[in-house]
Amino acid sequence: MKSLQFARSKALQSFSAPRALPSPATAQLWKRCFSATSATASQLAGLDPAKLQVTKTTTPKELTAPQDLVFGKTFTDHMLSIEWTAAKGWHAPQIGPYQNLSLDPSACVFHYAFECFEGMKAYKDKSDQIRLFRPNKNMERLNKSSARIALPSFDGEALTKLIGEFVKLDSKFIPNARGYSLYLRPTMIGTQKTLGVGPPGSALLFVIASPVGPYYPTGFKAISLEATDYAVRAWPGGVGDKKLGANYAPCVLPQLNAASRGFQQNLWLFGEEEYITEVGTMNLFVALKNKETGQKELVTAPLDGTILEGVTRDSVLALARERLAPKGWTISERKLKMSEVAEAAEEGRMIEVFGAGTAAIVSPVRTISYQGKLVDCGLKENEEAGEIALQMKNWIEGIQYGDEAHPWR
Amino acid sequence: MKSLQFARSKALQSFSAPRALPSPATAQLWKRCFSATSATASQLAGLDPAKLQVTKTTTPKELTAPQDLVFGKTFTDHMLSIEWTAAKGWHAPQIGPYQNLSLDPSACVFHYAFECFEGMKAYKDKSDQIRLFRPNKNMERLNKSSARIALPSFDGEALTKLIGEFVKLDSKFIPNARGYSLYLRPTMIGTQKTLGVGPPGSALLFVIASPVGPYYPTGFKAISLEATDYAVRAWPGGVGDKKLGANYAPCVLPQLNAASRGFQQNLWLFGEEEYITEVGTMNLFVALKNKETGQKELVTAPLDGTILEGVTRDSVLALARERLAPKGWTISERKLKMSEVAEAAEEGRMIEVFGAGTAAIVSPVRTISYQGKLVDCGLKENEEAGEIALQMKNWIEGIQYGDEAHPWR
Repeated sequence: MKSLQFARSKALQSFSAPRALPSPATAQLWKRCFSATSATASQLAGLDPAKLQVTKTTTPKELTAPQDLVFGKTFTDHMLSIEWTAAKGWHAPQIGPYQNLSLDPSACVFHYAFECFEGMKAYKDKSDQIRLFRPNKNMERLNKSSARIALPSFDGEALTKLIGEFVKLDSKFIPNARGYSLYLRPTMIGTQKTLGVGPPGSALLFVIASPVGPYYPTGFKAISLEATDYAVRAWPGGVGDKKLGANYAPCVLPQLNAASRGFQQNLWLFGEEEYITEVGTMNLFVALKNKETGQKELVTAPLDGTILEGVTRDSVLALARERLAPKGWTISERKLKMSEVAEAAEEGRMIEVFGAGTAAIVSPVRTISYQGKLVDCGLKENEEAGEIALQMKNWIEGIQYGDEAHPWR
Repeated sequence: MKSLQFARSKALQSFSAPRALPSPATAQLWKRCFSATSATASQLAGLDPAKLQVTKTTTPKELTAPQDLVFGKTFTDHMLSIEWTAAKGWHAPQIGPYQNLSLDPSACVFHYAFECFEGMKAYKDKSDQIRLFRPNKNMERLNKSSARIALPSFDGEALTKLIGEFVKLDSKFIPNARGYSLYLRPTMIGTQKTLGVGPPGSALLFVIASPVGPYYPTGFKAISLEATDYAVRAWPGGVGDKKLGANYAPCVLPQLNAASRGFQQNLWLFGEEEYITEVGTMNLFVALKNKETGQKELVTAPLDGTILEGVTRDSVLALARERLAPKGWTISERKLKMSEVAEAAEEGRMIEVFGAGTAAIVSPVRTISYQGKLVDCGLKENEEAGEIALQMKNWIEGIQYGDEAHPWR
């Protein structure tokens, strides 16, 4: 793995170092097909909330009854959209009626997956105030994702402000009950109308919003995973740590395969060592008694370039360091082999396992199918969630709904 | 690499074996979010050319002067589109005016890269007859690509027939001069309007066409490559062998980096061994004298799951086996390390290097930047293409334009 680690650090340098301007010949080469390189983009008009134009819908939608809400299926009355062109930079932001996008069939988003997105939520607290949860984290990540595929970057605070205006306008869609929220989907796509493969000369940043209910309306339901090595979600030098569309479609067939064998999600293993990476589209946490120290340890995979930098992952880690470490827990971002997990289960050292993501906050795991056996993840038969998962959900929801004053709200 | 090879063969089994039907509980799970799984799709209406509906444009475009044509920038008057829904299967094919696609902003193509495509060309021969080059290969590959991301499959002969109708209608856009053709872009996208990640319940297959001129209007121009290890295009168990949008956007930033240092394309290396895989978006061929046998050898990377199954690659291999092997050439699909290429150049055993793809047919290479040095790929100073590359281009064009009777036309 040495050369891979080297490759990774070189990649980071290469992608973050200020790049030299192209030579005149090279610039000419790009100019032939595209209007600009990403290097020139930053000198153009920035994202400016003061230029916002609002056009209200004339056909407001009926609200869906809270109990009938399905994740990402119904949307609010409006959407936020901001065009970008290499010539002008960011155009005036628009809030208008939720409506179809009209794009040339040669638009590069349809052919080369120039697309990245975020998932975040707006909550109504007890006093009917609307709250976002750590939006700066999502803005930071969207900028990293877009830069990785040569789409433009933007001022994260400006977009947060615009999202705030959008959410206020459509606030009637947020049920003010615990567990309910408005799922927000900021998305950036390349709209360049040529089939040449290169940095898009135009893009569209849009945000749509879907009211959602609790992920587990009748309480937690623990899931079962299939440890997956025949398909690989991410690799060193790849883009698995970015929230790109490219990371998602290829995971659906393995998920269907797992489902056909009765497992809800894939547990993505990596390499000969079968390192645990992620579960479905969530980060994974394993709580076990450390073989050497006997101490309780909460483990998740380190951010080595193959792991999505989950906002919930980060929140679970921070809360664990603040509230579990003083109780004797070790909190580790380290590589963990699937065989170590199986061994911990066999030796009675397994405490619990859960996924972590924006949609469910935490998702407890009952079993993992591995090498023809089921690895028991420590839940009692009549239990659907372990203690740590439950605590994390309560802590995070407490902050999200404003029960607890916290800088993340 | 042993476990990777194992993983790869398991993946093939898993993806090609007839899958068991989901259990009722699992089926229920999927039904909650999606209308159907890919398993049921094949029992629905197939793609039927007899149902074709044609609506001609009322605003025909001006033809672009042949010398002003830019790859994939101008399109013909019409487009072919066929909708698919999980409930009905393939709807009636439509040829209508070239026009924008109108899609819900939640359509899964914008978020999760449910998209795959083909590149193929139509040619006018001396007697003004229109010819396609090996369309069955493209149909086969598009079906493999779409299946890998849970999009529907289709009857390749039916689509070829429909493409034929489309090309006939817009045939005036094909300049009947050597080197000119109509580039065809069959594309399939997922159109499902929900944010849940799963197999799309609806899709759109469309074909657009762009008249193109010779890739090298003033004769070959050899390119220079940057051997790239910090970014990795494909991985065993990944999707690098499929023509998915997901494989393209992540390659643009490394290409910009290479361009900023004066190199036209990335030469993608893989693993600690630095195996040569592909160049930019083409397959790579290396002609050298074998170190052990002293024989002339034409080498390209084997189809191990990380290499795109290029139609031009396949054609070059077949022609080389038929026409070069009798002259003493060894034709090899084998792994080749970058260090072996550098060594061959140093020891005077390098003959020539070229990329192979639909756009350029062959693309001769002058140098490769590797470990701070430039590896000379065997061209003389006043030469822009080697003998094999020239021969291949002439042989393939001879078949494409019908100078030579051949089953591929």
